[in-house]
Amino acid sequence: MSKNNDELFKNVISHAKEYGFVFQSSEIYDGLSAVYDYGQNGAELKNNIKTYWWKSMVQMHENIVGIDAAIFMHPTTWKASGHVDGFNDPMIDNKDSKKRYRADQLIEDKIARYEKDGKTEKAAQLQTAMDEALKADNLTALRDLIVEHEIVCPVSGTRNWTDVRQFNLMFSTQMGAVADDADVIYLRPETAQGIFVNYLNVQKTGRMKIPFGIAQIGKAFRNEVIARQFIMRMREFEQMEMQFFVRPGSEMEWYDYWKQTRLKWHKALGTASEKYRFHDHTKLAHYANAAVDIEFQFPFGFKEVEGIHSRTDFDLSQHQKFSGKKIQYFDPEINQNYVPYVIETSIGLDRMFLLTLINAYEEQDLSEGDKKDSRVVLRLHPCLAPVKAAILPLTKKDGLPEKAREIMDRLKLDHNIIYEEKDSIGKRYRRQDAIGTPFCITVDHQSLQDNTVTIRHRDTMEQERVEIAQLDRIIGDRVSWKNLLGK
Amino acid sequence: MSKNNDELFKNVISHAKEYGFVFQSSEIYDGLSAVYDYGQNGAELKNNIKTYWWKSMVQMHENIVGIDAAIFMHPTTWKASGHVDGFNDPMIDNKDSKKRYRADQLIEDKIARYEKDGKTEKAAQLQTAMDEALKADNLTALRDLIVEHEIVCPVSGTRNWTDVRQFNLMFSTQMGAVADDADVIYLRPETAQGIFVNYLNVQKTGRMKIPFGIAQIGKAFRNEVIARQFIMRMREFEQMEMQFFVRPGSEMEWYDYWKQTRLKWHKALGTASEKYRFHDHTKLAHYANAAVDIEFQFPFGFKEVEGIHSRTDFDLSQHQKFSGKKIQYFDPEINQNYVPYVIETSIGLDRMFLLTLINAYEEQDLSEGDKKDSRVVLRLHPCLAPVKAAILPLTKKDGLPEKAREIMDRLKLDHNIIYEEKDSIGKRYRRQDAIGTPFCITVDHQSLQDNTVTIRHRDTMEQERVEIAQLDRIIGDRVSWKNLLGK
Repeated sequence: MSKNNDELFKNVISHAKEYGFVFQSSEIYDGLSAVYDYGQNGAELKNNIKTYWWKSMVQMHENIVGIDAAIFMHPTTWKASGHVDGFNDPMIDNKDSKKRYRADQLIEDKIARYEKDGKTEKAAQLQTAMDEALKADNLTALRDLIVEHEIVCPVSGTRNWTDVRQFNLMFSTQMGAVADDADVIYLRPETAQGIFVNYLNVQKTGRMKIPFGIAQIGKAFRNEVIARQFIMRMREFEQMEMQFFVRPGSEMEWYDYWKQTRLKWHKALGTASEKYRFHDHTKLAHYANAAVDIEFQFPFGFKEVEGIHSRTDFDLSQHQKFSGKKIQYFDPEINQNYVPYVIETSIGLDRMFLLTLINAYEEQDLSEGDKKDSRVVLRLHPCLAPVKAAILPLTKKDGLPEKAREIMDRLKLDHNIIYEEKDSIGKRYRRQDAIGTPFCITVDHQSLQDNTVTIRHRDTMEQERVEIAQLDRIIGDRVSWKNLLGK
Repeated sequence: MSKNNDELFKNVISHAKEYGFVFQSSEIYDGLSAVYDYGQNGAELKNNIKTYWWKSMVQMHENIVGIDAAIFMHPTTWKASGHVDGFNDPMIDNKDSKKRYRADQLIEDKIARYEKDGKTEKAAQLQTAMDEALKADNLTALRDLIVEHEIVCPVSGTRNWTDVRQFNLMFSTQMGAVADDADVIYLRPETAQGIFVNYLNVQKTGRMKIPFGIAQIGKAFRNEVIARQFIMRMREFEQMEMQFFVRPGSEMEWYDYWKQTRLKWHKALGTASEKYRFHDHTKLAHYANAAVDIEFQFPFGFKEVEGIHSRTDFDLSQHQKFSGKKIQYFDPEINQNYVPYVIETSIGLDRMFLLTLINAYEEQDLSEGDKKDSRVVLRLHPCLAPVKAAILPLTKKDGLPEKAREIMDRLKLDHNIIYEEKDSIGKRYRRQDAIGTPFCITVDHQSLQDNTVTIRHRDTMEQERVEIAQLDRIIGDRVSWKNLLGK
């Protein structure tokens, strides 16, 4: 991360806190690691992102429906999905400091140090060796690399290491009151399985015909050892996932369709094209026959924000096997029964939130000649803005507040509106810029005479005089979901 | 529950499953006790209820903002709130069957049996004795009652009981990878504390002035021993809570305000007044100085759907004490610092969902003379209906599907619309009645000539011929949130 990018990222994080977008969870108790709360503006922005996704996926596609499955699921689900056995990180403890590390992370840090010291060849060698060990699930080989390259514990400084062991990333808890046989259940580490176990119910009760999709927004939980970069990698996070069920053999066609469709969804928000790129997976998960990430250029580099995965019939077949229930679709067009293939689109809601915030954030220099001036403005798409308009009486007297509230009481039936009468108009404009409010509506003395107000536009800072009766239409047109969904 | 009510409730539960409203969680693995998933129509209905609440509370009140706090919170939160020490049920084990029971539940079953057997006096005596024991937290006295009244284990039939012990209802899990000191954390048993620990951040960054409120919708978890009545009492459930911060001494005024305002919210949906009642708490929680339930007449009797609680300054004071951070508000009007008092409105989203479903459900007899006929119709408020309109081409040919899809492609930008071309029009109407779709729009041969369609209204089953160009306005007017928010 360059110094500028580093600073930009830090500024976005403090802006997010200062303006009520994101707070550290339980901050008054000094926080809970890698968990965050959304504040008064963050909750609205997050809801608007959810709405955009849900409308785009469910409302706009006649063959996609949405569900809302519980976080708690039958534990066999995670046996079938492979999470109980395979959802692990390789961990190693230092016996002196008692600290635990991800073995691959320790090695990666060493590689970075080699590179910094100009030992490029050594770095490359270690990288190759580690990749091989990880691919073969060879924990002994990983430990050997740590020993061989004399990696020390950052805390104790010693090389007194335990063996490398697998550590499962699922959070577990116990359900039921019977002490002796309370069931161990897991907090779901992904929302996808909630869709797969409901496949039969939805297909039957919804009379769905292949190809069709099931969409879901919900929380997932992973006990990440190293959680970092603000809301990029959290232990509690939210996913927006859609599983699209298709005829075997047609999956690559649909994979391409969803790749393009999802990228279009991102670009409809107006983000510069060059900030997005596709990144094909070279190492595929055991269930996939194709996978690609949509990456966004964060200040700390291009990172995954969404994944499109061709999951084959792996999940449904596993649930068929573990549940003993027949999960088959009779396709009248080809007169055949089969286990459907699946294309998944999976986007991290919190990452999308961060992307949106970073992309909208601008420190704008407004200096003219010697007169220094600047503002922070969030250039959010009007559909995503937490507040659609601020109603500002020029002064607190002469009946202006009453007139302003009259306007507000009408507009608030349709939109999230703020009323503010404190401080100068200039200061109030800047506060609205900082949370991305597209319109500031100022009520002045003229308003009392001719029923007009000024609208000040966030992005251009231009003002225009309009009739109060026109406000519904002007605001309504700009914040209408049609602007995004019609694209 | 009378036989009729019992049957009605059973019918609603099977209807909910058959039409994709509610499925048992992980049903293909024979379910997870007291956990449910929302299907394709349930997810939409649930989202609409959430939207109605959020708009009513946040959008319509200029002094209420919404947040979205994490499920994971710092464990000290639950020390401060009293949940670690006090959120218990008294449990007793039978040594022969190894089954565990809620002690008070066993006693209540006995009381019910006394009453059934006409032993009214004995029932009353036992009730009084149990109430006293519960009030005094006297576990020995509870056990003595079980022994004295010769209560047997329903499984083993024996009276071989352990002591009565407290069982905490919070789900716990471990966060962090360091084996020796992974932190025990809890899944929040209520969303309220997420608001209290964020009070300072929201008040400051949102420049909120008392009185003001913070609203939140989110999941909560309780390891209920006896979970029952479908989605009435679940282990994973969702709350819609608002904490309203007021000047000490003004709390009863605001308590009354919110009591009335919340009841109005329910009634705006068109539910018959006599189905709702207030139920004042006689036994107050340790933090409350007044509390009332809004009860709804479910088939199994009047039950709480929402609570309005005057929580005093208990929670904020406790967090002040446990965090060491000053949680005070400077009130410029009276020139004083104080810990704000709190009025809480807390509604169970799943209960509200069940209420809505039960209230809307009707098995309507449509017989005429000898011709037997009937339908199941969900008379949902149009704002809450999962699907707003169904577009139905009369036949699958002659260009009718194309015309129908043209209409659909325009309407779906604004609303959740279904397209259906299979089966007779009559059957298709009935399927839409069963999920509460307010409008069925039939495209016939005349439509191709004069650009008109028939609209068939769900409740009256009446049909009218309208211009296609009028559809946006007709549907838009009926499903507009203004119909609910303006009340």
